[in-house]
Amino acid sequence: MTKGQISRHVKLAGMGRALAGGETVFAGETRYRLKAGETLLDLAEEAARKALAEAGMDMGDVDCIVCAMGTPLQAIPCNAALIHERMARGTDIPAMDINTTCTSFISALDVMSYMIESGRYRAVLILSGDTASAALNPGQKESYELFSDGAAAGVLVKAEPGEASEILYARQCTWSEGAHDTEIRGGGGLLPAFSLADENREDYYFDMKGIRILRLCARKLPKFVEDCLREAGVAREEIQIVVPHQASKALDTIMPRLGFREGTYINRVAAYGNMVSASVPFALCESVQEGRIRRGDLVLLMGTAAGLTVNFMLMRY
Amino acid sequence: MTKGQISRHVKLAGMGRALAGGETVFAGETRYRLKAGETLLDLAEEAARKALAEAGMDMGDVDCIVCAMGTPLQAIPCNAALIHERMARGTDIPAMDINTTCTSFISALDVMSYMIESGRYRAVLILSGDTASAALNPGQKESYELFSDGAAAGVLVKAEPGEASEILYARQCTWSEGAHDTEIRGGGGLLPAFSLADENREDYYFDMKGIRILRLCARKLPKFVEDCLREAGVAREEIQIVVPHQASKALDTIMPRLGFREGTYINRVAAYGNMVSASVPFALCESVQEGRIRRGDLVLLMGTAAGLTVNFMLMRY
Repeated sequence: MTKGQISRHVKLAGMGRALAGGETVFAGETRYRLKAGETLLDLAEEAARKALAEAGMDMGDVDCIVCAMGTPLQAIPCNAALIHERMARGTDIPAMDINTTCTSFISALDVMSYMIESGRYRAVLILSGDTASAALNPGQKESYELFSDGAAAGVLVKAEPGEASEILYARQCTWSEGAHDTEIRGGGGLLPAFSLADENREDYYFDMKGIRILRLCARKLPKFVEDCLREAGVAREEIQIVVPHQASKALDTIMPRLGFREGTYINRVAAYGNMVSASVPFALCESVQEGRIRRGDLVLLMGTAAGLTVNFMLMRY
Repeated sequence: MTKGQISRHVKLAGMGRALAGGETVFAGETRYRLKAGETLLDLAEEAARKALAEAGMDMGDVDCIVCAMGTPLQAIPCNAALIHERMARGTDIPAMDINTTCTSFISALDVMSYMIESGRYRAVLILSGDTASAALNPGQKESYELFSDGAAAGVLVKAEPGEASEILYARQCTWSEGAHDTEIRGGGGLLPAFSLADENREDYYFDMKGIRILRLCARKLPKFVEDCLREAGVAREEIQIVVPHQASKALDTIMPRLGFREGTYINRVAAYGNMVSASVPFALCESVQEGRIRRGDLVLLMGTAAGLTVNFMLMRY
């Protein structure tokens, strides 16, 4: 593994977010679910248009569309082609999906930052969001009451000379000991839609083995975080705010164990639940809008995703 | 759109390929389909192990796994996490999916070449392949008799000083006027597996509108190819061989119209049919093994994919 990293002098020029229009309340907490006639494409487009507006850009300024989503909208084509049809029909803008499930937005920022740094692309529109409600199991209360449908987007561009914005360090690891701790076994090539039957209905629902995930994280995450901080040469005290994946209520248990005490990280699980790939960019966008994150602040984006994949990214916003 | 590109001094250190074990013959041409008990994971693993062996490497040398596949194996997690479980369990190697459907391998080469060029990763294992047979419509003869299940893989590394290998130019465009000309509408968030019924069964099958695709390509492809060649500063005569996506028998109609006469491009459609994302790397791997492509040869990888996405990549192998 290459340890040293070039800093990528990029910035999120604008961000946007959108929530599904349907509301359900579980134990006093609201979850947002697509209402009749609404699709994730509507939410993703809304978030992307807000991001472009904040950046003072339009689609003509974008030279790549990346869907960083954790689940497919259709089996074919890729999600980004369907977003392209909504927002960029008639243009040549390339469209692709980059997927590491819940941390897809961080992975996409990471990967595309190199293409921008090299001059290949000037502005990449990255969209995240999933239709969590399409596969929730009413029999699995823990996950059924946890997820919301939402979307968030950001426009990644080269920072201007003199601007502090940069991605200074990023690392991703996958620990496939946890590959089946968070999954939807059915619906893809291994267990096609046509195989759905009464006996295997559970295989087509989202299935989260919370305790197993927590155990794997407890065993692996502390060292991962220490290694990243050491490699990056950054101390926790230098980080203005941590934006973790809003995985579950366990956030307030896990983050202090990783050395981030309450108040140093964003926790919006009570407000929105887990929005899969949208969680990180949604929380980042909201924090910027509320003034909690300002230009030049050192922000840590991190999270665990189905896989089990972990992402860690230090960014000067 | 940034026109000039830095050359990425990378090479495919090894490649491998694998065919499904079941054979079906349509009008004298063999198509390969998964046999009972076989999954795409078996084929992808076989292709990847061959690629690593040819490169003289093992998983310990790989620092990123990318599944460049056109369809999901499960709805969650990403395909690369499932390959990781097969080949890299117990390691920290990051795993991610990059998807532009049929041209995913070219897109993944393109994107990851920048991460290698910058020193972020030293060796990226890229795997392609799809379970085409899972969603073929027996009522749509054209596509039902066209597809095979297969996999192919390559290990992308930094070229050594003095080696000629490089990616000198790549471009991708998406023309979403064709977003619904090649699709599987069902199985994802827009039309979940649970919505499958007798009335909408067709929506869960692969659906290819061949004539519409050919019309869109006839209108757009010639200019795209001319633009790419001009931007790259390369003449057709300098290209040793073209490896196109093995989309259909129409290859021998389309390629000459793009200025590539028979014999200057690989056409293995009769032998294998269309293998979705595996087609390009499979044909590239076979051509290398048969001595038709040698180190330093200027090779053009190109193709159209559902989206409609087109990819063009000039590589010194």
